[in-house]
Amino acid sequence: VSKEVKDYKIAHPNAKVVSLGIGDVSFPICEHVKNKMKEACDNQASANYVGYGNYYGLLELRQAIKENEYPDFSVDEIYVSDGTKTDSIDILEMFDVNARIAIYAPLYPIYVNGSYCVNRKFETKDQKDILKEHFDIVYLCNPNNPTGYAFTYDELKVWVDYALKNNAVIIYDNVYFKFINSPNTVKSIYEIAGSKKCAIELRSFSKHVSFTGIRCSYYVIPNELYPNINEYWKLRTLNRFNGASYIAQIGALASFDAPAQKVINKNITYYLKNAHYLRENFIKMGYEVIGGTDAPYLWIKCKEMNSWETFRYFLKELNVVVIPGSIFSLDGYFRVSSLGKYEDIVLAIERIMRYEESK
Amino acid sequence: VSKEVKDYKIAHPNAKVVSLGIGDVSFPICEHVKNKMKEACDNQASANYVGYGNYYGLLELRQAIKENEYPDFSVDEIYVSDGTKTDSIDILEMFDVNARIAIYAPLYPIYVNGSYCVNRKFETKDQKDILKEHFDIVYLCNPNNPTGYAFTYDELKVWVDYALKNNAVIIYDNVYFKFINSPNTVKSIYEIAGSKKCAIELRSFSKHVSFTGIRCSYYVIPNELYPNINEYWKLRTLNRFNGASYIAQIGALASFDAPAQKVINKNITYYLKNAHYLRENFIKMGYEVIGGTDAPYLWIKCKEMNSWETFRYFLKELNVVVIPGSIFSLDGYFRVSSLGKYEDIVLAIERIMRYEESK
Repeated sequence: VSKEVKDYKIAHPNAKVVSLGIGDVSFPICEHVKNKMKEACDNQASANYVGYGNYYGLLELRQAIKENEYPDFSVDEIYVSDGTKTDSIDILEMFDVNARIAIYAPLYPIYVNGSYCVNRKFETKDQKDILKEHFDIVYLCNPNNPTGYAFTYDELKVWVDYALKNNAVIIYDNVYFKFINSPNTVKSIYEIAGSKKCAIELRSFSKHVSFTGIRCSYYVIPNELYPNINEYWKLRTLNRFNGASYIAQIGALASFDAPAQKVINKNITYYLKNAHYLRENFIKMGYEVIGGTDAPYLWIKCKEMNSWETFRYFLKELNVVVIPGSIFSLDGYFRVSSLGKYEDIVLAIERIMRYEESK
Repeated sequence: VSKEVKDYKIAHPNAKVVSLGIGDVSFPICEHVKNKMKEACDNQASANYVGYGNYYGLLELRQAIKENEYPDFSVDEIYVSDGTKTDSIDILEMFDVNARIAIYAPLYPIYVNGSYCVNRKFETKDQKDILKEHFDIVYLCNPNNPTGYAFTYDELKVWVDYALKNNAVIIYDNVYFKFINSPNTVKSIYEIAGSKKCAIELRSFSKHVSFTGIRCSYYVIPNELYPNINEYWKLRTLNRFNGASYIAQIGALASFDAPAQKVINKNITYYLKNAHYLRENFIKMGYEVIGGTDAPYLWIKCKEMNSWETFRYFLKELNVVVIPGSIFSLDGYFRVSSLGKYEDIVLAIERIMRYEESK
């Protein structure tokens, strides 16, 4: 996608291309987090220099994560890392190479490509088909990338019950949790009874603290998990992980302070307003729309064309970038993101609307 | 080791324990690198905000690495990462799970423990025995941790010739390259003819830029390597690596500037002076000593006791910490580090000397 967009821009230097394909964030890091990271730089050039850190994460940061998001867990169950992309696949090193892994479509391609890299056997299926069979490991992304859909409590409970019944482990990618706000949804899988026995929850500072370039993520492996892997995972982490950068961890710690939380909440509200605007207008134009209420993504059914054709038509005729569903192993849809600027989103919608009206 | 030291300190709060076991660095980050990292923080809080980066590393940084250390390579053959510990094992994902891996003793334990984690078959042997057989992958650490020994040109050429003859790949851990200064040694394996066909060289900013907490490393995969893995490695990196932190990379870039190089050279000279002092005095006391001329480590033959006994005796009777060789799979030796402060090293030597004289 990015290659085709780049080539188009080179061939048409005057075209004002607007992107609804953004997976990165648009807001810079807030002042408070910046100031704390600069203090960390000063600290590293002083007698208080901190070298190799705790490979499970800075204790103060794990304590802040516990207090703010996981009061029912101990810090020993919380790990700090440098990205959910790797966390979600690395954890497979704890399980048998022949463990049967289910990933449902549409899917975040990293699960499939990452599993390939570590020689694991995975199957991509419909959610319904997964529930009919036995799997050892199930990847759930909620709120979902690409669909932007967030499970209701009851929908997620079906998965927890399935995992408990099958002794399966749910690898629960929860990086967009800050966007969840609708009634009957759940911010964390641990709101579901029994989930501590079967779920590893992964979160990140990337999207809400604008840390996509700074790199800091975290996850919970409950001591109640069956099998209990914490002891082995700690050994694995010592040997196979370098620790997140000290400066990134100090920034992540500062993100829990009130001045940072205020900016974070303002930014999430902004992205959700964008998503609402996109949702309303695509529906108005007669599109079938999923998501956009509890996530920065919307999953939109193509009309006449398949997803690559839609992508190319929108790029060349409307100068609007969307992401073809085929990238996520499901054709017939395209993904739209609300992580851009409001003005750009309004512009993109205007162009699509003019096209729809001209048909 | 650290647990026993900690327990001893708790039980003897008045003991002035001095460590020759340090694997971390003692000097803070220099002012120039600090200032550039603070600018990077400002940048991340501004309209110039940089999100997801190039997963192979910031282009400017790879260019600086090429210009300063690898002029014969293209930037496409240079990768930036967050630590050699993981780089050295991650690369195994490119090779068959049944590839035969050789690691010679004494060894940096990460190679063995890391290989375990990724289900690889490795054998730890004497150097001579490895050279007699066929292996697909050989780990070489030069200058060596723990022995502090640096190969001569001729000694390293034996390994390159072996690899070329066996179609083997050398994973060449070169993180202490800055310490190499003796005649007939080589800073980089690529000084040996034919090595581009068989060697992956790994380096780090950890030791000379004091980046053990900041996290930034780099490595070279030559396009001439047999097999040529660069294309697949780039795909792997996209899917299995998050990129080093932007701030760490900006700091690493600044480390090539003259004001930083001045401090780096001063620090290396300091550590080498410590190493020289340790070497001279251990020899004076009748110890057999390896290393300490081209690395911050010395590998010292135990006298009456085995390595754990020596460690415990030195800790409890002399209040001096050394690292038992058994940690590195070779008993009968202990490792001593020059990465501490000169005053502490003098103090430790005084105590060991008094003990030796009293025998």
